[in-house]
Amino acid sequence: MRNLRLGLAQINSTVGDLKGNTARIKQYIDQARNLGVDLLSFPELAITGYPPEDLLFKAEFIKDNRTCLEEVVNYSRDIAVVVGFVDSQEDLYNSAAVIFDGKLCGIYHKMYLPNYGVFDEDRYFRRGSGSPVYIIYGVGVGVNICEDIWHPTGPIPYQVQAGAELIVNIDASPYDALKRQKRERMLYTRANDHRVFISYNNLIGGQDELVFDGQSMVVNERGEIIAQGKAFVEDLIVTDLEIERVTRARLRDPRMRQEKQGAGETGIKQVIISKSAPRDHKIPIPQRSVYTVDMVEEVYSALVLGTGDYVRKNGFHQVVIGLSGGIDSTLVAVIAVDALGADNVVGVSMPSMYSSEGSKTDAQLLAQNLGIKLITIPINDTYHSYLKTLEPAFAGAKPGVAEENLQARVRGNLLMALSNKFGWLVLSTGNKSEMATGYATLYGDMAGGFAVIKDVPKTLVYKLSDYVNQKAGRDIIPQVVIDKPPSAELRPDQKDTDSLPPYDILDPIIQAYVEEDHSASDIIAMGYDGETVRRVIRMVDRNEYKRRQAAPGVKITPRAFGRDRRLPITSKYNSG
Amino acid sequence: MRNLRLGLAQINSTVGDLKGNTARIKQYIDQARNLGVDLLSFPELAITGYPPEDLLFKAEFIKDNRTCLEEVVNYSRDIAVVVGFVDSQEDLYNSAAVIFDGKLCGIYHKMYLPNYGVFDEDRYFRRGSGSPVYIIYGVGVGVNICEDIWHPTGPIPYQVQAGAELIVNIDASPYDALKRQKRERMLYTRANDHRVFISYNNLIGGQDELVFDGQSMVVNERGEIIAQGKAFVEDLIVTDLEIERVTRARLRDPRMRQEKQGAGETGIKQVIISKSAPRDHKIPIPQRSVYTVDMVEEVYSALVLGTGDYVRKNGFHQVVIGLSGGIDSTLVAVIAVDALGADNVVGVSMPSMYSSEGSKTDAQLLAQNLGIKLITIPINDTYHSYLKTLEPAFAGAKPGVAEENLQARVRGNLLMALSNKFGWLVLSTGNKSEMATGYATLYGDMAGGFAVIKDVPKTLVYKLSDYVNQKAGRDIIPQVVIDKPPSAELRPDQKDTDSLPPYDILDPIIQAYVEEDHSASDIIAMGYDGETVRRVIRMVDRNEYKRRQAAPGVKITPRAFGRDRRLPITSKYNSG
Repeated sequence: MRNLRLGLAQINSTVGDLKGNTARIKQYIDQARNLGVDLLSFPELAITGYPPEDLLFKAEFIKDNRTCLEEVVNYSRDIAVVVGFVDSQEDLYNSAAVIFDGKLCGIYHKMYLPNYGVFDEDRYFRRGSGSPVYIIYGVGVGVNICEDIWHPTGPIPYQVQAGAELIVNIDASPYDALKRQKRERMLYTRANDHRVFISYNNLIGGQDELVFDGQSMVVNERGEIIAQGKAFVEDLIVTDLEIERVTRARLRDPRMRQEKQGAGETGIKQVIISKSAPRDHKIPIPQRSVYTVDMVEEVYSALVLGTGDYVRKNGFHQVVIGLSGGIDSTLVAVIAVDALGADNVVGVSMPSMYSSEGSKTDAQLLAQNLGIKLITIPINDTYHSYLKTLEPAFAGAKPGVAEENLQARVRGNLLMALSNKFGWLVLSTGNKSEMATGYATLYGDMAGGFAVIKDVPKTLVYKLSDYVNQKAGRDIIPQVVIDKPPSAELRPDQKDTDSLPPYDILDPIIQAYVEEDHSASDIIAMGYDGETVRRVIRMVDRNEYKRRQAAPGVKITPRAFGRDRRLPITSKYNSG
Repeated sequence: MRNLRLGLAQINSTVGDLKGNTARIKQYIDQARNLGVDLLSFPELAITGYPPEDLLFKAEFIKDNRTCLEEVVNYSRDIAVVVGFVDSQEDLYNSAAVIFDGKLCGIYHKMYLPNYGVFDEDRYFRRGSGSPVYIIYGVGVGVNICEDIWHPTGPIPYQVQAGAELIVNIDASPYDALKRQKRERMLYTRANDHRVFISYNNLIGGQDELVFDGQSMVVNERGEIIAQGKAFVEDLIVTDLEIERVTRARLRDPRMRQEKQGAGETGIKQVIISKSAPRDHKIPIPQRSVYTVDMVEEVYSALVLGTGDYVRKNGFHQVVIGLSGGIDSTLVAVIAVDALGADNVVGVSMPSMYSSEGSKTDAQLLAQNLGIKLITIPINDTYHSYLKTLEPAFAGAKPGVAEENLQARVRGNLLMALSNKFGWLVLSTGNKSEMATGYATLYGDMAGGFAVIKDVPKTLVYKLSDYVNQKAGRDIIPQVVIDKPPSAELRPDQKDTDSLPPYDILDPIIQAYVEEDHSASDIIAMGYDGETVRRVIRMVDRNEYKRRQAAPGVKITPRAFGRDRRLPITSKYNSG
């Protein structure tokens, strides 16, 4: 009986940290070997981190990555390893090294290079051609990379026709709230179409705007999930594959024979690495509890990991957040504490004459609940100093948005001053509804190094807040904060609804327009008021310039602002 | 004798302004017809503007662009027209419509899609296949688009083998200081390789970070420039082509016969649009003066056009600039006045206790020289108000970069307050040397809507300043401003050289590292001090986060920060 013990190392690589990533890969090789793993895989570009972007244009970076690969090859005694790196043969290839017992036995070049959404792989890589099947411990193994598996006519059918019984697909698949279901369905279909085991090895970790969620999976020849990795944490998934299941299934499936008739022409060869059967595994695999994650919990975890990794990987230890007593800054503080610990989070309350009493007491209550330090710095004196200084220039003009923005900018400056003085990273607190409509002040509340919830619509901010309290079993986020009507508090009795439609109307319009490219008339046909739809679209279009100067933040929707959506600032197209 | 009168309309399209662009195209058709032009071309994507980026994902935008094309087709009576638009046939194609006498006779799909540098065309378009030759007035015309002509094995050899005597190439080629020479050399080679007339029709105008310089060209079968468009302004270039020159040259060139032997297999067809000979042109072509542009003048024109178009196309009329008395803000003010007129430029002097007497008087002198309004707003009171407010939080800490940045941020806030109050766009004044090293304050001197000289190294700032004075024949830029040692004036006796190497050493290192991807050891081998090189590289690497929040500005070097150079913020790769 051919029983292959498969391992998937779902690691957190850091972009550019070639040595650190290599050390981590070696640790996981040790762990896997101790568990009797025959074949261990690592994520796409595990050695360089993903995505390395224009680091790929540095010749020394490519050379260093190759040196690291050699270190991994030499270290892989008594085990087979598939690991992502950058191969260079005149052009660069996004590659998977196939290693067996200290020898580099093959290199697979990614064939389908994604160049949409957040991806720019055509900018760097040449597409591969040819995809041999490796015989490892007598098992036919087809190796491919990420996007390759999303193409029904990609390498998998050819690899299967040439004898692949297991597909080892290595990935760097960024999280969004709909992604896991898409992956599951696709893997189900591929496995059933080809009667093949598929291993889907994703990475975890935050990288600028992206967060990788892990949730690696192994499916059997029926598409059933037989092992899965945790979400948002490193993991080593180990599972035994009963390869004969594939043989039996194929005998019963006439499609396989029909397709095989053309196989001679595919030009796919077998590379024999080891014909001997897999070893007999006496070492038990640790039991794993199966768990399910709901969407809100998943988003929350993404925000915690994305924020924590941005802070840590950029060499910061502590963060500072302006606490207005509103729901957005409150949620950001909670996420920061979960990501970094209460000792590493500083809240700053910066009341003005327009601040409600609640905005001060609510910030204090939150700081108590979280056990974080709270600094209070009133802004009135400085704000009035600005007004006095500007009096001659402003003579005769009515107060308006200039004065409102000044208050936000005084706060931004105070946070940046604390950041400069103490080395704290400023977390900004704007949500996606604000980023979309430009309901935020450039250099004011938009100031900061990382914008934690910039891709979270306001309606989801509320759901996440409920989740936080529910998980804690107590009101970490004071109920009064959840209940009060949203306000920027930059003039007396200001409410968000003075400027914006109610969020339960605004957010679906933003989703339809920004995430799904619907036109005004499409959205009106969904039942929304015409004037409202056109007003929202105009706000989204006119505020591209603000978003260009925004801090990065965690992508959690299928289309975030930033790399994902590339609109010109200068544009006279009228979508509204 | 076959004499074809060719016209090139070097227009300034605005991205998204489909109706405006169409109206402009029709105006040029009128002008060309009045001059007896047989065949008139327009730039790449002339109807949509270039680059339309993610506007291409909007189905209505594509439909509207097609409607505009039909309008142009109907308008093209008694003339042949080649114009860029987006064709949609399941996928999108970057296309050229071939129109003759009110009929759409053919559509060419761009074959080579640039996806490097500032380009992302693989994100949107499918590459074309096939490239017929159109017989227009009995002349074989091969049409292709921009990047196509840069590939020696691209459509040109096939089009020539199928009978093309003239190649009409339509372009959207962004300016950089080395680009014109590259184009000339390439056109010379293509024309000589294939003994063919080539028309290279570029556009002009600023679009976010890009500026298109025009400088369209027509070369004969020897690669000699027989007509050229102006730089940075709209132009209609009209020239008569003596097509028999091609016939004669080919008879004398054995390469053509050898290559033709395989022509039957290329599958390139001829599409006969009009066999009748070109009309006899009785209308004289207006005489054109030939001119040459030197590099500094060219860069200056690029900055003026890029800035003016950004301001105008985004609906602004006036700009505001903080004038420190330094060379950078001075040059930006001069450029702004050239782009928008003195009445539309407001200078603001914001002295602090660290400002030298010269910084105030020099700003005044400049404002006089330029005839612009100058507002003076001292920052001391507000700055001290911040310090007082921050006293409890800063207790015991030494003054340092936090205090310096606060001054810059007070100035940034004041400019933004004026912008909010009066609708003036803030022009920021940082140069490329500062952007590279992070020698600038986020939300301080980096605050603004457009960063005019962000791609201009400091050493080139000086050359441009000399050029300004030389052109004017007087010291518009006071000589004392050119002569004084650069200083941010944020602490007593501060000089740029306290933090940075001298600019004549810094700038070549930045060029080698940022624009040419050289490694530290490469640059040291060029003769620069090792410690200096490594320090500069560290500064460049560490300040990616600042550049991500910078305003857009005109690209004038082969690699600008922004779309052109995409490095991760989070990166542990040590290049230094």
